[in-house]
Amino acid sequence: MAAIKKRGKQSIAFSSPPVICAWGSVVGPKEGKGPWNEKFDLVLEDYLLGEKTWERAESRILEEAVKLALSKKGLTTGDAELLLAGDLLNQLVSSNYAARELAIPFLGLYGACSTMAEALLTGAMLLDGGFYERVVAAAVSHHYTSERQFRFPTEQGVQKAPTAQWTVTGSGAAVLQTAGVGPRITCATIGKVIDLGQTDPGDMGSAMAPAAVDTLKIHLDDTGRPSDYYDLIITGDLGNVGMALATEMFVKQGICPKPNYSDCGVLIYDDSQGVNSGGSGCGCAASMLCGPLLKKMADGEINRLLLIATGALMSPTVSFQGETIPGIAHAVALENYC
Amino acid sequence: MAAIKKRGKQSIAFSSPPVICAWGSVVGPKEGKGPWNEKFDLVLEDYLLGEKTWERAESRILEEAVKLALSKKGLTTGDAELLLAGDLLNQLVSSNYAARELAIPFLGLYGACSTMAEALLTGAMLLDGGFYERVVAAAVSHHYTSERQFRFPTEQGVQKAPTAQWTVTGSGAAVLQTAGVGPRITCATIGKVIDLGQTDPGDMGSAMAPAAVDTLKIHLDDTGRPSDYYDLIITGDLGNVGMALATEMFVKQGICPKPNYSDCGVLIYDDSQGVNSGGSGCGCAASMLCGPLLKKMADGEINRLLLIATGALMSPTVSFQGETIPGIAHAVALENYC
Repeated sequence: MAAIKKRGKQSIAFSSPPVICAWGSVVGPKEGKGPWNEKFDLVLEDYLLGEKTWERAESRILEEAVKLALSKKGLTTGDAELLLAGDLLNQLVSSNYAARELAIPFLGLYGACSTMAEALLTGAMLLDGGFYERVVAAAVSHHYTSERQFRFPTEQGVQKAPTAQWTVTGSGAAVLQTAGVGPRITCATIGKVIDLGQTDPGDMGSAMAPAAVDTLKIHLDDTGRPSDYYDLIITGDLGNVGMALATEMFVKQGICPKPNYSDCGVLIYDDSQGVNSGGSGCGCAASMLCGPLLKKMADGEINRLLLIATGALMSPTVSFQGETIPGIAHAVALENYC
Repeated sequence: MAAIKKRGKQSIAFSSPPVICAWGSVVGPKEGKGPWNEKFDLVLEDYLLGEKTWERAESRILEEAVKLALSKKGLTTGDAELLLAGDLLNQLVSSNYAARELAIPFLGLYGACSTMAEALLTGAMLLDGGFYERVVAAAVSHHYTSERQFRFPTEQGVQKAPTAQWTVTGSGAAVLQTAGVGPRITCATIGKVIDLGQTDPGDMGSAMAPAAVDTLKIHLDDTGRPSDYYDLIITGDLGNVGMALATEMFVKQGICPKPNYSDCGVLIYDDSQGVNSGGSGCGCAASMLCGPLLKKMADGEINRLLLIATGALMSPTVSFQGETIPGIAHAVALENYC
């Protein structure tokens, strides 16, 4: 059935909404000490998992999340037809090396912290398009590999700005199928790159907020849904500063998502954990989705969820060259059929 | 029509093969001095295009290739529903900033030098799946941004190993449509990450050759096609060293693709150009495809082409940590309907 699934130019409505039949989450020690400890499948005791480097550990975290998700349905890696995954490291090495170990045909995606949404919506299109019956969508980040790559040597103990966020050590993996039981991916909106001229790499939340607002506005316009259609609209990792800015911008756009709007970066840690503006990293939205949020959907506590994962698209090189920081946001609607 | 398009686990056969209705290529001065000068749409006079940095220039090269491809059918960026693109730079900045300027909804892909094939096959699935009518697939690389990022400061003039390759300055963009006139994407094979333990970052061709062989073997098995079904089987950028190794491995697998096998990295430069083992970079396969190769298809000189774009998936960080270099290869079959 090749119905026209597209509604408007940026949103897709699926003919046969793919099912998230299983999911898995692995997080670091700090994330385990936050409010959601028992909602994650696996909380690590340290940042290395017995590996020699943080980079290898990050790759293992992704690998374990994928295996964990598959195992919940008694599946192994051989049962997955395709892996769609990404991370924040240069040349996507965490995902590449995990894909090597998992030996699943692999498409590498890069959307910075929006990657989990990119993987989910691309996977959903490939399933609904009739090309696959079971794919895995996943993303990972690691606090210490990100610090090393994007910021300062961790040993230096540089003080962070109040607007700065803490990169989450964690991964989430979702098993998507054409058939089965679980929340369904009913529609998606693919974002454009939006840049309002922010240049401070210590405030990614403000750089990404305009993209989140643009994508939500288009999503609601394309689908004709009011914002209260969703039990929860959740952005990826705007943090406290970015979420406040986004909320202000939503109101200016005539959208009032409160009280059903929140942000994974705001929720993942306790205020007492010293994370300044909140959590970030593509493992933030991925682990919150494949931990607490999908659990709430399975329990019927949330029946309609809109995940708007957001990414800041600069690199340290171009940031040093004076470039502004563009953002992107992709939205994925998950719904329980009651 | 939701026919089962999948043949075997890794290959896709399209129900309504998408059409490459237009294409564009932009290359640097050195590439213009090679054997294909007049086959590229635009040969640059320098490496900066009037920009202040090579990074900005790389982004512009991608932007221009996309606009050029669209313009050939009288289209502008507003006519493209989706951009699928990638590059080699950290955090995919060339593509991100080009997508910002182009303002087309954007999915960032990272497959190292296999990115053009990843973009083509993903785009083809999204068209054949009924989600879009027109998307653009593109990739770019730039010699001097790659040197800066992956190797040594260019000013240092470090001597290269005989096995080393020259990163191509160039981009290719293809406009894919559900309907129209042009070569069609009839099938595709998505690769696994293959790692035979190579550790020399000065010999990427040998690191990628096993992935190319694996993907071609699976493609031929899945589709039941003999290797001489294709007028040309062309790998992305194995270069002379990698191509010789791949040829040897093909024979061991019982595949004898000669005389219809070649490699974009071997073809793009003249031997006299001092490029050691040949060309590389995701702009290599992209510009060769969207320049000389699609021109040959339009002229009926080639009617069946299998592009196997290959990527080496390590980063300098993990390479310094002693990791081996895994490779990936994706195959895309392009056919003229006679």
